[in-house]
Amino acid sequence: MREPARQAPGSTSAPSGTFGTRILELADRLAAHSEMTGGLTCTYLSPAHRAVAKELQGLMQQAGLDTTIDAVGNIIGRYRSSNASAKALIVGSHYDTVVNAGRYDGRLGILTALVVAEQLQRAGQALPFHLDVVAFAEEEGVRFSAPYIGSSAIAGRFDHALLQRSDARGMTLADALIGIGSKSEDIAALARQPQDLVGYLEVHIEQGPVLLNSNRPAGIVTAIAGGARHQVTVHGRAGHAGTVPMALRQDAAAAAAEIVLAVERRCSAEQGLVGTVGKLAVPGGAINVIPARCELTLDIRAGDDAMRDAAERDVRAEIAQIALRRGVAVDVDELSRTPAIACAPGLQALMAQALQGAGVEPFYLASGAGHDAVMFAGVTDIGMLFVRCGNGGISHHPGETVTAEDADLGARVLLDVILSLA
Amino acid sequence: MREPARQAPGSTSAPSGTFGTRILELADRLAAHSEMTGGLTCTYLSPAHRAVAKELQGLMQQAGLDTTIDAVGNIIGRYRSSNASAKALIVGSHYDTVVNAGRYDGRLGILTALVVAEQLQRAGQALPFHLDVVAFAEEEGVRFSAPYIGSSAIAGRFDHALLQRSDARGMTLADALIGIGSKSEDIAALARQPQDLVGYLEVHIEQGPVLLNSNRPAGIVTAIAGGARHQVTVHGRAGHAGTVPMALRQDAAAAAAEIVLAVERRCSAEQGLVGTVGKLAVPGGAINVIPARCELTLDIRAGDDAMRDAAERDVRAEIAQIALRRGVAVDVDELSRTPAIACAPGLQALMAQALQGAGVEPFYLASGAGHDAVMFAGVTDIGMLFVRCGNGGISHHPGETVTAEDADLGARVLLDVILSLA
Repeated sequence: MREPARQAPGSTSAPSGTFGTRILELADRLAAHSEMTGGLTCTYLSPAHRAVAKELQGLMQQAGLDTTIDAVGNIIGRYRSSNASAKALIVGSHYDTVVNAGRYDGRLGILTALVVAEQLQRAGQALPFHLDVVAFAEEEGVRFSAPYIGSSAIAGRFDHALLQRSDARGMTLADALIGIGSKSEDIAALARQPQDLVGYLEVHIEQGPVLLNSNRPAGIVTAIAGGARHQVTVHGRAGHAGTVPMALRQDAAAAAAEIVLAVERRCSAEQGLVGTVGKLAVPGGAINVIPARCELTLDIRAGDDAMRDAAERDVRAEIAQIALRRGVAVDVDELSRTPAIACAPGLQALMAQALQGAGVEPFYLASGAGHDAVMFAGVTDIGMLFVRCGNGGISHHPGETVTAEDADLGARVLLDVILSLA
Repeated sequence: MREPARQAPGSTSAPSGTFGTRILELADRLAAHSEMTGGLTCTYLSPAHRAVAKELQGLMQQAGLDTTIDAVGNIIGRYRSSNASAKALIVGSHYDTVVNAGRYDGRLGILTALVVAEQLQRAGQALPFHLDVVAFAEEEGVRFSAPYIGSSAIAGRFDHALLQRSDARGMTLADALIGIGSKSEDIAALARQPQDLVGYLEVHIEQGPVLLNSNRPAGIVTAIAGGARHQVTVHGRAGHAGTVPMALRQDAAAAAAEIVLAVERRCSAEQGLVGTVGKLAVPGGAINVIPARCELTLDIRAGDDAMRDAAERDVRAEIAQIALRRGVAVDVDELSRTPAIACAPGLQALMAQALQGAGVEPFYLASGAGHDAVMFAGVTDIGMLFVRCGNGGISHHPGETVTAEDADLGARVLLDVILSLA
């Protein structure tokens, strides 16, 4: 006699499409809580953020998960293994947003994990590990200019110096935590140990147009790009816009323009490499004065550190040539450097298998943006699945979209990977 | 018997070098009056400016000139013709300065005219025209954001609406004039009539490196460049610096960089043409965001309007191509447009003759900057002589230099031209 609450693994899947419509419905529900009217802003520990937390906790409880909100505001819903001392598989993403955000960045990953847990619960699926659906409280870094507050705590990488950092109104993180009844002394205890983890899985909207433009619903993340950021300052020579012949100029803006195009050209030469000049300015510039100074920033990223380093070397060499040829001086100051983080080949292989099972040819891409998964690198195996981002790939913007079909595929792949791991 | 106070024209010249050393000494003396310590700033109707006026008036009186300070603060020292109804030749430049200025811009022309008048006086040289040594009170436009206040009054082009314009402290030009005991009703009467003028001559420091780099002490100005100024705005598409592949970007800063280099390239293609992007900015740019907008200014000048118009057309066409190729929109809004002003061929020929007489091969160049002479275009014949600017051609800067030898040549040429006109 079959136990009604248990099904064979083969029947754990839900009717096709139901995951996706539920994910989108729930994303709309969460987006109703906002700090702004007419748009979505949900920054760390704001009233809107607390309302979303309560909503998520309720959804997890309804799914039958053992639910807690931890000392930094993460919501953890555990689908328990019958083996109490089993390891845990963490599946999640973040519920905070940027200012005037889209409704899927972060939340898609939480809701995908939730609907999968709901399905496991419905199917009575036994797992040899605990499945922890985690809604990380903070990833975007908006309120305290520090990202990954939620995931860093669980990964054991929380920077306690941040407790004294203030938000725009002068409130410290420590005081903000007291405000929600939390004790910062409890943060250290949130750290999971490598031996207690099976791995970390995150479904996330791509936040770019690669899947959209190649007509693919989802992609397996091979690595999270490392980045090198530099401040570049060009020192030329001021001069009268009417009296200094072109050949005798040492125009800082013209040199900077060459640098911008050199970055673009070099970073266009290889797939998976991107380079951006996001800030560009002639400080105190005047229409009739040849610029003496031009400032710009340089952000180069690749899923592969050697690729990025080579591009950076070439750009620096080209900057030196531009400086020499134009008789200007250029300072290139490194602001930050983070290595690329590889996703576990085993988890990538399981995702590929799941995609193939769903009739989708596996497609691989690196993530140019950072995600909560970054915090778990070196702690446990990481796997990430990107779901196609509509509307030209726009994200961090109200125009961000995901289709129910693609969200559904993401959930089916996640479920399949979890069952494979089991 | 020779009259002791009269010499033949051939002996009107002073011992070689004495003009130059006196000009430089007097420039140092004038530079002692400043609104700032450790540098020279002398803006219109400031205490320093009044002190310079007093000093100049004294110098003109010592030179035996009939001296007046007019309703806008111009100082006019007349070396009278015996023919009371003779026309006048105006020779001068301005005594106001920019902030943290050099000591020769403007003043070189006044002092050159002064030492020439001193020499005419010493030699008892009779002239068939009145020689008006004019120290214009305002040319730079610093205090009331309006240039040429002094020369426009004498040229009959004073804009009376300026009287209500305020300086940075809220004082109107009308009130500033009352402060020096002047009546603005008297300004209109300062206008000279074309039939009363022989011409206008101005010696000025080049304010650029052309003479210096071609190893020439002085140059004959053929024209004062006209200019076209534009505000250019590039509208691209924002995106995440990590997630949007290079080929899919519509980067406003990269498009702007191409425009900067297109301006430089086109304006380098012809002698006498200059193009400058003086302002360049990504408003609100962030290091990790692909620029959605980039703003720049465009200043194109040439001594020949057709040359400038052709360059402007080509730059606009190239901007359109860049926009099309990159999928960005570019607004090009004209801010101002002034025609080039030709210097009188007759006066140019007299200067060439004077230079040859001094053993210097005539050299011709256009002025990229505006000068008081601009105001007299269409009123009378204009002649301008540029004197070599040292130190790389830097001007509007404390590092501005002129040698005594070059200043001396300028005075000898001016004297020779005046005697030729006589």
